[in-house]
Amino acid sequence: MSHHDQISFKTTGPTQGRSGRFKRRSRSLSQSSTDSYSSGSYSGSSSEDDDVSPREKVQYNSKNFKGFCVRNIKQAAFGRREIEIAEQEMPGLMLLRKRAEGEKPLKGSKIIGCTHITAQAAVLIETLHALGASVRWSACNIYSTQNEVAAALAEAGFPIFAWRGETEDDFWWCIERCILSDDWQPNMILDDGGDATHMMLKKCPETFKLIKGIVEESVTGVHRLYQLSKSNKLSVPAMNVNDSVTKVKFDNLYCCRESILDALKRTTDIMFGGKQVVVVGYGEVGKGCCAALKGLGAIVYITEIDPICALQACMDGFRVVKMDEVVRIADVIITASGNKTVVTRQHLDRMKNGCIVCNMGHSNTEIDVDSLRTPDLTWEKVRSQVDHIIWPDGKRILLLAQGRLVNWSCSTVPSFVVSITATTQALALIELFNAPQGRYKKDVYLLPKKLDEYVASLHLPAFDAHLTELTDDQAKYIGLNKAGPFKPNYYRY
Amino acid sequence: MSHHDQISFKTTGPTQGRSGRFKRRSRSLSQSSTDSYSSGSYSGSSSEDDDVSPREKVQYNSKNFKGFCVRNIKQAAFGRREIEIAEQEMPGLMLLRKRAEGEKPLKGSKIIGCTHITAQAAVLIETLHALGASVRWSACNIYSTQNEVAAALAEAGFPIFAWRGETEDDFWWCIERCILSDDWQPNMILDDGGDATHMMLKKCPETFKLIKGIVEESVTGVHRLYQLSKSNKLSVPAMNVNDSVTKVKFDNLYCCRESILDALKRTTDIMFGGKQVVVVGYGEVGKGCCAALKGLGAIVYITEIDPICALQACMDGFRVVKMDEVVRIADVIITASGNKTVVTRQHLDRMKNGCIVCNMGHSNTEIDVDSLRTPDLTWEKVRSQVDHIIWPDGKRILLLAQGRLVNWSCSTVPSFVVSITATTQALALIELFNAPQGRYKKDVYLLPKKLDEYVASLHLPAFDAHLTELTDDQAKYIGLNKAGPFKPNYYRY
Amino acid sequence: MSHHDQISFKTTGPTQGRSGRFKRRSRSLSQSSTDSYSSGSYSGSSSEDDDVSPREKVQYNSKNFKGFCVRNIKQAAFGRREIEIAEQEMPGLMLLRKRAEGEKPLKGSKIIGCTHITAQAAVLIETLHALGASVRWSACNIYSTQNEVAAALAEAGFPIFAWRGETEDDFWWCIERCILSDDWQPNMILDDGGDATHMMLKKCPETFKLIKGIVEESVTGVHRLYQLSKSNKLSVPAMNVNDSVTKVKFDNLYCCRESILDALKRTTDIMFGGKQVVVVGYGEVGKGCCAALKGLGAIVYITEIDPICALQACMDGFRVVKMDEVVRIADVIITASGNKTVVTRQHLDRMKNGCIVCNMGHSNTEIDVDSLRTPDLTWEKVRSQVDHIIWPDGKRILLLAQGRLVNWSCSTVPSFVVSITATTQALALIELFNAPQGRYKKDVYLLPKKLDEYVASLHLPAFDAHLTELTDDQAKYIGLNKAGPFKPNYYRY
Amino acid sequence: MSHHDQISFKTTGPTQGRSGRFKRRSRSLSQSSTDSYSSGSYSGSSSEDDDVSPREKVQYNSKNFKGFCVRNIKQAAFGRREIEIAEQEMPGLMLLRKRAEGEKPLKGSKIIGCTHITAQAAVLIETLHALGASVRWSACNIYSTQNEVAAALAEAGFPIFAWRGETEDDFWWCIERCILSDDWQPNMILDDGGDATHMMLKKCPETFKLIKGIVEESVTGVHRLYQLSKSNKLSVPAMNVNDSVTKVKFDNLYCCRESILDALKRTTDIMFGGKQVVVVGYGEVGKGCCAALKGLGAIVYITEIDPICALQACMDGFRVVKMDEVVRIADVIITASGNKTVVTRQHLDRMKNGCIVCNMGHSNTEIDVDSLRTPDLTWEKVRSQVDHIIWPDGKRILLLAQGRLVNWSCSTVPSFVVSITATTQALALIELFNAPQGRYKKDVYLLPKKLDEYVASLHLPAFDAHLTELTDDQAKYIGLNKAGPFKPNYYRY
Repeated sequence: MSHHDQISFKTTGPTQGRSGRFKRRSRSLSQSSTDSYSSGSYSGSSSEDDDVSPREKVQYNSKNFKGFCVRNIKQAAFGRREIEIAEQEMPGLMLLRKRAEGEKPLKGSKIIGCTHITAQAAVLIETLHALGASVRWSACNIYSTQNEVAAALAEAGFPIFAWRGETEDDFWWCIERCILSDDWQPNMILDDGGDATHMMLKKCPETFKLIKGIVEESVTGVHRLYQLSKSNKLSVPAMNVNDSVTKVKFDNLYCCRESILDALKRTTDIMFGGKQVVVVGYGEVGKGCCAALKGLGAIVYITEIDPICALQACMDGFRVVKMDEVVRIADVIITASGNKTVVTRQHLDRMKNGCIVCNMGHSNTEIDVDSLRTPDLTWEKVRSQVDHIIWPDGKRILLLAQGRLVNWSCSTVPSFVVSITATTQALALIELFNAPQGRYKKDVYLLPKKLDEYVASLHLPAFDAHLTELTDDQAKYIGLNKAGPFKPNYYRY
Repeated sequence: MSHHDQISFKTTGPTQGRSGRFKRRSRSLSQSSTDSYSSGSYSGSSSEDDDVSPREKVQYNSKNFKGFCVRNIKQAAFGRREIEIAEQEMPGLMLLRKRAEGEKPLKGSKIIGCTHITAQAAVLIETLHALGASVRWSACNIYSTQNEVAAALAEAGFPIFAWRGETEDDFWWCIERCILSDDWQPNMILDDGGDATHMMLKKCPETFKLIKGIVEESVTGVHRLYQLSKSNKLSVPAMNVNDSVTKVKFDNLYCCRESILDALKRTTDIMFGGKQVVVVGYGEVGKGCCAALKGLGAIVYITEIDPICALQACMDGFRVVKMDEVVRIADVIITASGNKTVVTRQHLDRMKNGCIVCNMGHSNTEIDVDSLRTPDLTWEKVRSQVDHIIWPDGKRILLLAQGRLVNWSCSTVPSFVVSITATTQALALIELFNAPQGRYKKDVYLLPKKLDEYVASLHLPAFDAHLTELTDDQAKYIGLNKAGPFKPNYYRY
Repeated sequence: MSHHDQISFKTTGPTQGRSGRFKRRSRSLSQSSTDSYSSGSYSGSSSEDDDVSPREKVQYNSKNFKGFCVRNIKQAAFGRREIEIAEQEMPGLMLLRKRAEGEKPLKGSKIIGCTHITAQAAVLIETLHALGASVRWSACNIYSTQNEVAAALAEAGFPIFAWRGETEDDFWWCIERCILSDDWQPNMILDDGGDATHMMLKKCPETFKLIKGIVEESVTGVHRLYQLSKSNKLSVPAMNVNDSVTKVKFDNLYCCRESILDALKRTTDIMFGGKQVVVVGYGEVGKGCCAALKGLGAIVYITEIDPICALQACMDGFRVVKMDEVVRIADVIITASGNKTVVTRQHLDRMKNGCIVCNMGHSNTEIDVDSLRTPDLTWEKVRSQVDHIIWPDGKRILLLAQGRLVNWSCSTVPSFVVSITATTQALALIELFNAPQGRYKKDVYLLPKKLDEYVASLHLPAFDAHLTELTDDQAKYIGLNKAGPFKPNYYRY
Repeated sequence: MSHHDQISFKTTGPTQGRSGRFKRRSRSLSQSSTDSYSSGSYSGSSSEDDDVSPREKVQYNSKNFKGFCVRNIKQAAFGRREIEIAEQEMPGLMLLRKRAEGEKPLKGSKIIGCTHITAQAAVLIETLHALGASVRWSACNIYSTQNEVAAALAEAGFPIFAWRGETEDDFWWCIERCILSDDWQPNMILDDGGDATHMMLKKCPETFKLIKGIVEESVTGVHRLYQLSKSNKLSVPAMNVNDSVTKVKFDNLYCCRESILDALKRTTDIMFGGKQVVVVGYGEVGKGCCAALKGLGAIVYITEIDPICALQACMDGFRVVKMDEVVRIADVIITASGNKTVVTRQHLDRMKNGCIVCNMGHSNTEIDVDSLRTPDLTWEKVRSQVDHIIWPDGKRILLLAQGRLVNWSCSTVPSFVVSITATTQALALIELFNAPQGRYKKDVYLLPKKLDEYVASLHLPAFDAHLTELTDDQAKYIGLNKAGPFKPNYYRY
């Protein structure tokens, strides 16, 4: 398979849910896909550079610092510009930086980071630094690094170890370079997938015990943390950012609402008006897709296994059907189920000529792409991320991104939404680092609701939104503290 | 009693949240308001009837049964028609009746009911009966009984004790008639507000201990149950229906989406296009109102205290403002905060001529109506439920339903949505009555998620919606049982 | 007369289009239906009054004036309140009154009016008076007069001849009383249906020639004017208000968007979410209905004969189907085609139990109601304007308003939209009355675009809308006068 | 000036309206901008090619034909693929081809074409050919030619004279090569801008008189035709396609609804939720933009000069304001007025940091871009088509496409919508070519409504839409022919 599944080697099993790690990853890659549109003008990377592994080159930044490993330090200026653009659209995180810069709540913290290396991640890294943290950073994915951003971070003096197109060996080498540093002892981990956490647990079990807290944002990483916790191997408190309100209700819903149209347009130039679209799954991802498509005049059908989500779809004005009922008439089919093989070869055989098939949900298992690799079918790559699969009778199906997350590959994701999650990560780090002894045990926690609310409040000024304050009387009447939290933990938003 | 707060004597204090009891009450009263539109044609009640208290009359139904107390048994035919209409729009509950009728899962149960007596409640009562239950029923509100429905139930042989316009003494007398029956020992309670529960606890503490379970749907009643539980006085398991998913996500959101336009139209004939509307609070009630208003071309502003809800409002395309910023330009102001005095006299003084003010949230405390009862202002009742408050300079404010729930008073609530909650109540009774020893302790429980899902599934056929079933493979992959539950308990929908 | 078609005696043949006269009529009747909801509180009409024909009573207003004929002058106060409420919601017409009151552009005009007598019509009549006109007024429909409004006008001194429930003889007698007045010679006609015009043409051909202009708003009346014009019998200029932009684009589209939900709710308490609705015809009426229904979560299907409208429906996100394809699954069927028998007995036979059928389009011919009057079917009136038609197998179809315009019978129409048409009528009268000799020949005209724009501009302040003015440079560049008109005549809006 | 205004030399003055020519142009260029994203993979044009003018090269296609002049015949395969993709999305035009291929209604026609040379235009050209026409073709714009498409056409044997980046001299030379052919005498013109028409009129006045008809689709070209007609110089009938219903109501409205989001996303990756957007002008273009933006949660404000459009905006739920009222808070400003200088330097000075400014309306005059070329401001090109204008205080305004049509430069336009206009052009040619003597005089005509309807009907199968047929009875009742036309000419849709 020419398209090596870059995430398989880290995913040890099926994961519940549909976002988290994979979603997050999408961001970085989507950024890189933008990059590819404009690679000529931006990165200036010549092919010669790519021939030599960064591990074999010695590079210095303009201040003669060489404690990093990136593709090409000369791309720093391009990366800096991308970071500046991202800063504009990450107002909540920038506001946190501004507010807490004096206070330096992360002073003394030494954070190992292992995330996608994107412009947005750079804004997070530089925010942590501004808040007092010392960091070392590697990539959580071998394909997702924006090289010019990594260069910009290196130029700014950050010990960064990441480039696009690492080998698996490179991948672990980079993480190790972060963990094992002679004169630098980490006390916090910001992880995306759990790889840094697990390497450290294995390689430096003693140092691991000194860690004050782990912040994890991916489905997979959270899953692994809960497993550690169950088997009593989790010796430090950890914060599950993946299931925080802001992540679930903003990152998933709005991010998909914003990116589905974009992904379809950039790949197929489709007209949405009057198109019949089947969305598989009416969770947050599906809800976001449906809202956007309906807004532009598409007719949307839903398939669901869960009667509650199905009833929501009904009340929201969508027909709930089985795939077999609509597969022949569909113009577009979008998977968002979090499950595997929800679009089968049998379905694909029955689709009409020109049907577009893509995935917004889970890795590359929702559409049974492998079933299309049979001798009777012809694959024709017509554009980047667009394959025509041609049946013997001439029927063509348009498969986007080979069934991988389509907004992962074919669109960008709004920095604003990323800002919400990044701010949550920063606050989780601050909370764990500063929590009084005993507040957090060796367990996995959700962010306290009050901090969730703080994350939201940091993003309101961007909308020029003005919160109302409770009067003393009202606060008393309703039994709330005027500063929040304003809702019980089980509130569903 | 022109402004007596008819619910105050049962509400011992402020309650959190914004629906539950008060919401439920709205249904019955809204039904009764429909009734009032057409009282001539429907109920045929002559004023003479009203002069004599039902307690002082002896009435027989056509089968010579007299174990009930209603306004006028002769209205039974009208009530039966209303019940039949309600059955049509309560497909989930009717389907449950049909499916479980053979099995009779409530055989042996003896249920005391204390709810609003409406056509929809009648469908619930007759469903419980069809499932094997024996019942005795009274009203949870002195104003909300549909007399003709009560008559229809009495005609059908149900021991029903309720009429519109009970005195407080009548109210308790009716409940007592349900509890204290010589030859009938209750073993279940279906309560709305907690009055039956508490009377029984006080008057028959010994019998109370034999109760197998309590099902409670109101905010207030649930609050009282948790208090009992805390003080170790709850000797039986109780089910909190008020916070079940179907209640929160369907009853609140969609019910308000359906009824806000209706309530405003019926009272004011307002045109929605281009109107500037302020909605106070962006919880489920506010969200429902906003969706409906935006759909008809209104421009909606939100006030919020909670930054998370505020951020949702922003992302959904609404300006989040303080009341002071928009009070002068608003055409309509709708309160949905669950708090008190969110519209003050100062606000009212600054509104423009013709502004409509109404409440979708909490009892009659959200708008400071009392502040309008000053000598400088003139009240003019222009229609049923519509008062003009006239300022010295001639400015008129249109106050709907005197600040009580406007869909409570001025519109109907879709039976379909009520069906969802009623089905939840029925299933909760079945679950508690049949649960094996030990499954439920002396505590307050939420409905198991699987039953939530069952409630939803019972309502899908009405939409001709077809659920997809997991394959064995998919179920294994995602770690689910093919029959559900399909989501973890913390899932937010 | 339970099913007499009250408009048939004036409709001499099929009329093109779907609004005009019949639409206009709906307004008044809808008002009267409101009235019926609350007749007890408002009109105070005792049944004794109704036994005596107004023609046989002599009534005086408080100033001892008796030159009118209404049901009961004592209802004047109730009518005045209704007029005041209407004034609030007719800001454009009131603004015209205020602006032109000093100038008195209708000074010297003597206008015969023959329209529905409603609160909104009263605002028009009093505006004409304020602008200098002398008027005499009768009703254009025997059912639509709001008696209390007629009383209020009579109390204010207007020679008004109209009551609800006129006989056909009464109808013509009333018009004649307007035309034939000893000391008053009409010089303008404001007509709705053409009856005043034609009676005058027949009875007073000489006086008719002295008329300075006719303003006509109905489809039927306009049709008759064009016929007169063709046969060279039109001796005066006439203005066709029915096809003015503001009428077509506001009255039809937005009026239906506002009233369809209301009409369905008031009659059936239907929940819209997830309902499958078939709308027959995607003209302005259909477009308005669809927009509203989609906004509340209904799934809408369209049937169309015109491929252009059908393509618009497709692009707007609606499936275009034949009735046969969807009649079995429809929850609601709304006719808006302007044609006859678009819902046949065959369709009705195939509808599912509980299907609601109603008409927004043309008189009572769109649904083949007569085909339902066969012995095998049972009719049951369940509410005002709601009939259940019961098939032998128990299936029930809900027929609203017996197939007459459902917003005609079951809802109100926003006064604001009526204001737009009424203002157009007033300006048309002013234009014809003041036009220099020769501007208008003996023909039928559309309102000059500039006046159309003026009508619109009078309604903008109600929205606090602020127009931008062209700079000299921009006006020159685009070739427009800064004061308008801003669009060519063929512009489609 | 690096940004030569490529259209100025053909635009002799201000033009009314906002679409037509300029709009059409957008399509081709937007195609070319797509092209630019992916130039590496698609066209394979090496820079050497570009150094030599096509006029100085002799090229042969694979059948040894050399009667064309394109950039590089070797790109034909790439172009053919683009044409095939376009065919998929132009179902109406392809259906016309299929239906009329046997009949060959253009047999004997010799058509000079002068339009943008895009994949969609190629589908039109090949359709005309399939219908019997002989053609010669040049470009109507020096920048808009898709070189690979021109190559594909040349490879297919079409005498095509066009390439991207012609000089003005090249431009006229190409048209001349079409007109002046030794053995080929044109008898029809398909023009876009009027240049072919006018060159022929000047250079070959005698041949011009033999032309059977002109079809023109641009605002400018139509304007010039009307001028010719007025001055009695139009010696042949001409068809104004620009003002046909399908053009106005589909091309403008839906095309903008589809492309505005795309254009903004591809350039700025903006998140739409909660953004405050000002749209200048609420014509079809503005309406399309607003519908799309509202659908994704933006808050939209309108500025308007025309009270009728302003009132529509109000009723549709948008605040109508003056630019000064909102310029400080706007996140995005979109011009769609058809006028000049609607965004001035004064406005730009007052916008907030990060505001995006772009134009959907008229050439590059709506935003006063020249006013930004002052020494105090810094221009920074951050991406293709995105300039940051930096104020001395650091404020940045994002100017898209330097004020030229943003969907012209930064997005694609759905082929489906183009298909509607192209089909109209083909039918206009057929109609003029086959019209019996005398049907058309030396004047400018609109397409007969019946053909408009036929265009629409050809596009319905793509939506699987099923038209209803009138019964004989219905047709008679409503006074229509069963085959249409279904509406009077003045119908407004």
